Amino acid sequence: MTDINMIGAAAKRMAGHVRVTPLLSSPFLDEIAGRPLFLKAECLQHTGSFKFRGGWAAVSALSPEQLAKGVIAFSSGNHAQGVANAAAKHGAKAVIVMPSDAPQVKIENTRALGAEVVLFDRETEDRNEVADRTNPNGDMHLIKPYDDVMVIAGQGTTGLEIASQARVEGITDADVIVCCGGGGLTSGIALALEAEAPNFTVRTAEPEEFEDVARSLISGKIESNVRRSGSLCDAIISPAPGDITFPILKRLCGPGMVVTEDECLHAMALAFERLRIVIEPGGAAALAAALFHGDKINTDSVIAVATGGNVDAAVFQLALSKFGPNS
Amino acid sequence: MTDINMIGAAAKRMAGHVRVTPLLSSPFLDEIAGRPLFLKAECLQHTGSFKFRGGWAAVSALSPEQLAKGVIAFSSGNHAQGVANAAAKHGAKAVIVMPSDAPQVKIENTRALGAEVVLFDRETEDRNEVADRTNPNGDMHLIKPYDDVMVIAGQGTTGLEIASQARVEGITDADVIVCCGGGGLTSGIALALEAEAPNFTVRTAEPEEFEDVARSLISGKIESNVRRSGSLCDAIISPAPGDITFPILKRLCGPGMVVTEDECLHAMALAFERLRIVIEPGGAAALAAALFHGDKINTDSVIAVATGGNVDAAVFQLALSKFGPNS
Repeated sequence: MTDINMIGAAAKRMAGHVRVTPLLSSPFLDEIAGRPLFLKAECLQHTGSFKFRGGWAAVSALSPEQLAKGVIAFSSGNHAQGVANAAAKHGAKAVIVMPSDAPQVKIENTRALGAEVVLFDRETEDRNEVADRTNPNGDMHLIKPYDDVMVIAGQGTTGLEIASQARVEGITDADVIVCCGGGGLTSGIALALEAEAPNFTVRTAEPEEFEDVARSLISGKIESNVRRSGSLCDAIISPAPGDITFPILKRLCGPGMVVTEDECLHAMALAFERLRIVIEPGGAAALAAALFHGDKINTDSVIAVATGGNVDAAVFQLALSKFGPNS
Repeated sequence: MTDINMIGAAAKRMAGHVRVTPLLSSPFLDEIAGRPLFLKAECLQHTGSFKFRGGWAAVSALSPEQLAKGVIAFSSGNHAQGVANAAAKHGAKAVIVMPSDAPQVKIENTRALGAEVVLFDRETEDRNEVADRTNPNGDMHLIKPYDDVMVIAGQGTTGLEIASQARVEGITDADVIVCCGGGGLTSGIALALEAEAPNFTVRTAEPEEFEDVARSLISGKIESNVRRSGSLCDAIISPAPGDITFPILKRLCGPGMVVTEDECLHAMALAFERLRIVIEPGGAAALAAALFHGDKINTDSVIAVATGGNVDAAVFQLALSKFGPNS
């Protein structure tokens, strides 16, 4: 199981390779939120999301023998790019298995980051069969997107930075809201803050109709989403919290927060105007919760994690058209 | 005259108040530039531009007596917001004189940052008369946008950070390209790098038809722009380099670089896609020079300063429509 020592060890392996992302703020956002609001801008991480941390932590923990055999991951999104770039920087081969209907730009970006991309047909092929075909002897090390102790340790380094940056800012009482898919980042941050900022409470943020984690935290057992796709917040949609991540979330997190897609678009437009950063819809869920659901927060300050910034121009333009400073 | 000791002293007064902005990079941008490219993201500074540094340095250097009398500045743009916020955080009154045809959102933002805004009619009123009317006894301290030794010292702290961050990245040979209006930031950075990274050469970037500094560097004397307005890059348009700044630029800078408005829009779209930050057109001139005019650069690496990110949604959408990842 991931613990604070593993997170500290991951941070040592990552030093100088993973970006220490800034903690941003604006008096205009404080006013909307009704309290000092700080944004951990993980959209500024290499490859545009926190996934690079988990990728680096997992790859850098491998033996030279395993690095020579390479790594494999299944993803059409941020995890693909994070693993591809981390592997390339270790000189290790990475195979990324992506659905053939993934956006062409994501396929090209993953290839450009040095990975071999294997496409499969979601309608006619089984993912496990593709895995067997692509990695027949199991030689390549599989890096899972969240239910992986080393990946959780890597994502947890975000929490170490939050604790340290919060001390500099003088923040002593805060909810830390994290956009949550499978729970890798949230559980990692929760473990880091349990050790380094035990006063803080980690909260999850999810889009409406995909609030599997919020429901799981209420029922105390793993609940699944009914729908699996069709959200603008696709980057943080996963079927259910993980077997490894959920016990951590259950032990350490406060009640989950739920936001609408429009609130995410509005948060993106405010981040554009007031913080000058680009956030993807799923990556804006925590900021949306901090801005528009302050009634569910009881702390002096709030820290929101912007988990990623890989967004099509058309979706970003939609956010600006609906909620931008011209409107 | 501003010197490295004044810049160091300004940095001490600014510690904990001014944001240390990150030095960002992307392998995709390196490929376009033909060399490692690093972007100093000063658009992430408080109030969205480097102007906050100069404002803070100038206000924090005042005596308690002068602080009690307040400060005054003339600006409709980034300098207005930088001075307003810096004064407010010192508990000092700030009067910002703005043309009455300035965009309403800029007037509102400046007021929201705590300043008193005095409007004047550009057609019928003389700026000096407005100054006399607003500040009749000259009690309030005037903070000029660039030709001010204390403002230059504040902007120079950007150079101290660049030198330090370049050492961490292992950059030993680089041109440092700075979007240049009146030359306050460029001269400050040049003075800081002369002391802290003497191998680096500072270069200016300006939009076509407003390349007063590039022409001044060629002729060796202060040259003026013929046109004074009508550029998308309005944030970095000034009539001519300053009497204080130009001698510094002349002594320390390499040849000026000139870019087109379309190149600035293209650089904005690439910064959106690859770095997930928001840059205004004028603030993207240096990045555009680094990306698209590599033939005029002879160093191993290049560092571009993104000077600001205060851009209307409509202009940003124009950049995305023309050059965004969907196009």
